[in-house]
Amino acid sequence: MAQTLKDLEVQYVKVFINSIQELNIVDTGSVFYELARWDASIATYFIVTNCLGISVIERCGGDDQKKRILPDCILMKKSICFGLTEPNNGSDATGLQSTAKKVEGGFVLNGQKRWIGNGTFADYIIIWARNVDEGNKIQGFVVEKGSSGLKTSKIENKFSIRMVQKYNFLLLMLYSADIELKDVFVPYHNRLEKALDFASGANNILKHSRIQVAWLAAGVGAGAVEAAHRYSLERKQFGKPIASFQASQEKLASMISSVNAMILTCHRVSLLYQRGKASMGQIAMAKAYCTKTSRQVCSLARELCGGNGILLENHVMKQFMDMEGIHTYEGTYDINNLVGAREITGIAAFR
Amino acid sequence: MAQTLKDLEVQYVKVFINSIQELNIVDTGSVFYELARWDASIATYFIVTNCLGISVIERCGGDDQKKRILPDCILMKKSICFGLTEPNNGSDATGLQSTAKKVEGGFVLNGQKRWIGNGTFADYIIIWARNVDEGNKIQGFVVEKGSSGLKTSKIENKFSIRMVQKYNFLLLMLYSADIELKDVFVPYHNRLEKALDFASGANNILKHSRIQVAWLAAGVGAGAVEAAHRYSLERKQFGKPIASFQASQEKLASMISSVNAMILTCHRVSLLYQRGKASMGQIAMAKAYCTKTSRQVCSLARELCGGNGILLENHVMKQFMDMEGIHTYEGTYDINNLVGAREITGIAAFR
Amino acid sequence: MAQTLKDLEVQYVKVFINSIQELNIVDTGSVFYELARWDASIATYFIVTNCLGISVIERCGGDDQKKRILPDCILMKKSICFGLTEPNNGSDATGLQSTAKKVEGGFVLNGQKRWIGNGTFADYIIIWARNVDEGNKIQGFVVEKGSSGLKTSKIENKFSIRMVQKYNFLLLMLYSADIELKDVFVPYHNRLEKALDFASGANNILKHSRIQVAWLAAGVGAGAVEAAHRYSLERKQFGKPIASFQASQEKLASMISSVNAMILTCHRVSLLYQRGKASMGQIAMAKAYCTKTSRQVCSLARELCGGNGILLENHVMKQFMDMEGIHTYEGTYDINNLVGAREITGIAAFR
Amino acid sequence: MAQTLKDLEVQYVKVFINSIQELNIVDTGSVFYELARWDASIATYFIVTNCLGISVIERCGGDDQKKRILPDCILMKKSICFGLTEPNNGSDATGLQSTAKKVEGGFVLNGQKRWIGNGTFADYIIIWARNVDEGNKIQGFVVEKGSSGLKTSKIENKFSIRMVQKYNFLLLMLYSADIELKDVFVPYHNRLEKALDFASGANNILKHSRIQVAWLAAGVGAGAVEAAHRYSLERKQFGKPIASFQASQEKLASMISSVNAMILTCHRVSLLYQRGKASMGQIAMAKAYCTKTSRQVCSLARELCGGNGILLENHVMKQFMDMEGIHTYEGTYDINNLVGAREITGIAAFR
Repeated sequence: MAQTLKDLEVQYVKVFINSIQELNIVDTGSVFYELARWDASIATYFIVTNCLGISVIERCGGDDQKKRILPDCILMKKSICFGLTEPNNGSDATGLQSTAKKVEGGFVLNGQKRWIGNGTFADYIIIWARNVDEGNKIQGFVVEKGSSGLKTSKIENKFSIRMVQKYNFLLLMLYSADIELKDVFVPYHNRLEKALDFASGANNILKHSRIQVAWLAAGVGAGAVEAAHRYSLERKQFGKPIASFQASQEKLASMISSVNAMILTCHRVSLLYQRGKASMGQIAMAKAYCTKTSRQVCSLARELCGGNGILLENHVMKQFMDMEGIHTYEGTYDINNLVGAREITGIAAFR
Repeated sequence: MAQTLKDLEVQYVKVFINSIQELNIVDTGSVFYELARWDASIATYFIVTNCLGISVIERCGGDDQKKRILPDCILMKKSICFGLTEPNNGSDATGLQSTAKKVEGGFVLNGQKRWIGNGTFADYIIIWARNVDEGNKIQGFVVEKGSSGLKTSKIENKFSIRMVQKYNFLLLMLYSADIELKDVFVPYHNRLEKALDFASGANNILKHSRIQVAWLAAGVGAGAVEAAHRYSLERKQFGKPIASFQASQEKLASMISSVNAMILTCHRVSLLYQRGKASMGQIAMAKAYCTKTSRQVCSLARELCGGNGILLENHVMKQFMDMEGIHTYEGTYDINNLVGAREITGIAAFR
Repeated sequence: MAQTLKDLEVQYVKVFINSIQELNIVDTGSVFYELARWDASIATYFIVTNCLGISVIERCGGDDQKKRILPDCILMKKSICFGLTEPNNGSDATGLQSTAKKVEGGFVLNGQKRWIGNGTFADYIIIWARNVDEGNKIQGFVVEKGSSGLKTSKIENKFSIRMVQKYNFLLLMLYSADIELKDVFVPYHNRLEKALDFASGANNILKHSRIQVAWLAAGVGAGAVEAAHRYSLERKQFGKPIASFQASQEKLASMISSVNAMILTCHRVSLLYQRGKASMGQIAMAKAYCTKTSRQVCSLARELCGGNGILLENHVMKQFMDMEGIHTYEGTYDINNLVGAREITGIAAFR
Repeated sequence: MAQTLKDLEVQYVKVFINSIQELNIVDTGSVFYELARWDASIATYFIVTNCLGISVIERCGGDDQKKRILPDCILMKKSICFGLTEPNNGSDATGLQSTAKKVEGGFVLNGQKRWIGNGTFADYIIIWARNVDEGNKIQGFVVEKGSSGLKTSKIENKFSIRMVQKYNFLLLMLYSADIELKDVFVPYHNRLEKALDFASGANNILKHSRIQVAWLAAGVGAGAVEAAHRYSLERKQFGKPIASFQASQEKLASMISSVNAMILTCHRVSLLYQRGKASMGQIAMAKAYCTKTSRQVCSLARELCGGNGILLENHVMKQFMDMEGIHTYEGTYDINNLVGAREITGIAAFR
């Protein structure tokens, strides 16, 4: 019996998600790199789903929680997302203000979250909140879609990481959400069993996902360079391909050296992570390094494509715009560098 | 009787266009700077209309042509645009391939133009084409809207200098057009009388308009800095405005120094121009310098606004995207620098 | 009767110093710019002598002090220098630790100074110290050469702003000194009458001298560009001047645009100063901007001269090295930017 | 009987040279990296001796030549150097003009060489010259010290890679030489048997040595960062180590990320080389990338050390100056990028 295109797509994605569950971090990273060459929004969608959503349940959930939530997420029957950032707490994540209060049979959550990828449609929203009855520790709670008091809304008019509708293999859209929690009840069995403070919970997860974002940034740059390379060989001015001018060649060589350096940086920090030897500082610096470098690469690639480079069809403008979101999410460039520098110097300089 | 909003807008614009006709180049430049702080598309619209369209008629047109065309353009009853760039000739403008051939009573034009601002709706389209009967010299022809054989189409999916519909003072859209000319007849009286070769025609006009683009670039940067400055004072992290962190202050101070340097550069080259002493190289370098510098400024401003900086409402992302088009139009950064370096070294290195 | 070369030189310098006393700040700045094109050490020598030494006496000295000290300094019979920086207080100048204590007939000074230009040979050493009897205010004291308890020594092995002996017009050397003050007696009449706290004393002087350092930085860059320009036209590779390659032309054009921006920045802030409208922040940012920009310019110029560029005879290496000292003295780049940002944001972020 | 310090040093060096003969390229590279952290001149001395001098004999020499020349060089009884660059042919190496002409029993060489490291004292000077009797192919000839018609002279006043006399372990000086050859006779047995054209001779050697220079550049940067890191923790301003300021932490983190990227780039290209898979373009880009990156690192490190950073004792100024020579030798940054871009685009853009 004939399947619709939509069905095929969903099936493709299921296989994809399923398969990357088995991969080591270098291989998963390579997958995100490859996806991001083509589209950073799709890569981001899977990082949110796998490295933030599913991973949290795997690492911080109890056996019952895993059994109940994971299979459907892996099969993409259900979707999941990760709510850490708040309107007033981005870089200063540990200062988050959402609260959980014990009540009969569970907890009541209040607060606001912002920039939550997949947040508008996710079935499971992992909310990080201070447990006011347990020393204000930051703990994880799974809020289910449709809970009373839960309100999610799409953040409008963003000009980065906005998935383009034309892509016909996948009809998902990457929406970032504003989330409001007003006396949202979460049953006791939906508190993540092993995420009882920030260090063992959210922060631990971020080590893993932040490496993937570094890979993603490298991929965005690689995609931009490939597009610019192709264009520079096809586009002629003054009777020859613009690739033949010194001004273009300097851009091409330096972009490719930079992409090379990003891949090697991601590969190295992934190996360290696998051996249990990557510190938070090293990971943060890898993310900072790759986003800064990829931003420069995209800027050069955009420039190399001249006027035509501002069109979507030439790919570089999209990569250029997408890098802005990536430069900022999972910790801005500055914050990640300060996390690294804290290890380098032994001194915290956030404030 | 009550006027509609639209009427008021048009009236406002008429007064505006009328008034800048009288200004010297420093003052006009300042106007474009101010407009671009707010929106580069609107500023571009007026540069196209005034510095490219109307100016060409004023400088290269005969008395009859001026009388016939100018008043309506200045009163905005008619619109006008400037067709130099071609699909295969951007940086290499003097290699353009459109042709004009003498026929009974005028000329027949053939060729293609691309990236023609206002081109989709302009009543008068100034086309630069090689007169095959006069030694292939590049001459100017006024093609009127609706001419048989003329086809204009909007360039879709550009992500820079796309005027945002919300602005309610002005309902114009800045469309860049692809233009096709297939045996388009232009009567003899529509050939620009004083634009009989490239140097006296198009190139001369570009000296003037290129200075305005430098001012525009400075304005885009200034708008970005102001938005970032405001945001950095309002946005709090770790209990204080992010403007209070060294990492932010370094960005703010260096951005403002850069805007200052751009304004001074524009002012200086404008004064030289007024005294008849600005060479094409100096003008080209001023444009190159301002676009490069403003691009860096917008990048820093975007970064300073963090996640919220990718939203339209925070203004920086728009300025950041708009700078890409400006970096390229009226000569790319590389080409303008090579035009400057030709004067500096006495050696042309375009090929 | 025949004069020695030395006599002629000294006479030349006297005339020079004398004449710049009369100039306004734009003109003096231009003089320092011109000197620095050729040699930053000589320019620094005169900034120390005129803008720091002589100016302090003029602005902060009483009539008697002016009469006693100035004429000989202006005629270069006596030399003078300015002691603010200490081994442990560079950027944090207002934290200086040298002290002055009232005693019979004057004061006793104790402390250390570092990086004091001309300090090894100056006849008058202006020492800024806290008056422990007047609320620890920072006041100015003229210590005379040979005072008991005063020890000056040359700072060895510096690789920036080291005047090259070959210059035969002037046999002075720019030594930076370490100075030790151990119970140095300063008679009452050698306390600067109008420098009774930091704001009215040292800081006021620095506004003036810092502008000159900005001019000096611009001049160093200009000298480097001129040398690189000349070299690129003379040096041939692949059968033509290296100036004819795009890779060189991009460097040349961007360097010249930068020098232009520096000159305009210095000119502007000087005009503001003359009208009494230049804030400390504006001046600090002009200095920061010019030193950063000139450093980039010197780096490009050095690169353009290839292997031969590391030789003294090609001038660029000296300019490149000299910019390091200038980037740091009269406030580092970071500190000057923070001084500017304090005005921009209303928030001090030094600590 | 007691050995002198000098004896011990020479013995140490012998052991060193001997031992690195056995290493693979990653390990040798690491050795040059380590040496360059401390002193680029010493590292350069060994690159010249081993990777250019000894390697040429090993790869291009016949058995007899190897037996005759190598043992003494490896034991440092004799010294060796590599003469490719000429006064008028640096970047355009293949355009070299020195000639070799067949005569009775050998060849007569004429020409000039420049920037020849160790050239002033080497016992064996490998000269690359065009054999006018064999189609002007570029071949290698071993000129022995003291040959009639050979004149070597030290290049004076260079301000980069000038070994500092204080180092007491080694009393060698790295002199770059100008070499003049006037009818210098080279016996037939001193023509390198397997270097009968540029590709098989000089160029092949450069693949190997250029990788080592990339390692060296990484080491220079690493040495600068270490010095700056140490300084930033010791130096206090405003009552705390300057390492605790955001402005310093950003510099530290970004420098360390850059050093990391350089090491990974060198490691990767070395592995490729070992497997016979590194193209000349990849090697050239690795060298270009590392020298550009290390130059930026040294510039930041120099800045971080403030005024004290211009003193030799703080190490950063020396690294900063040394990077200038390294940025240029073994191909300038621009030339190496163009070599890379030729592979990337299939188009040569040297001319």
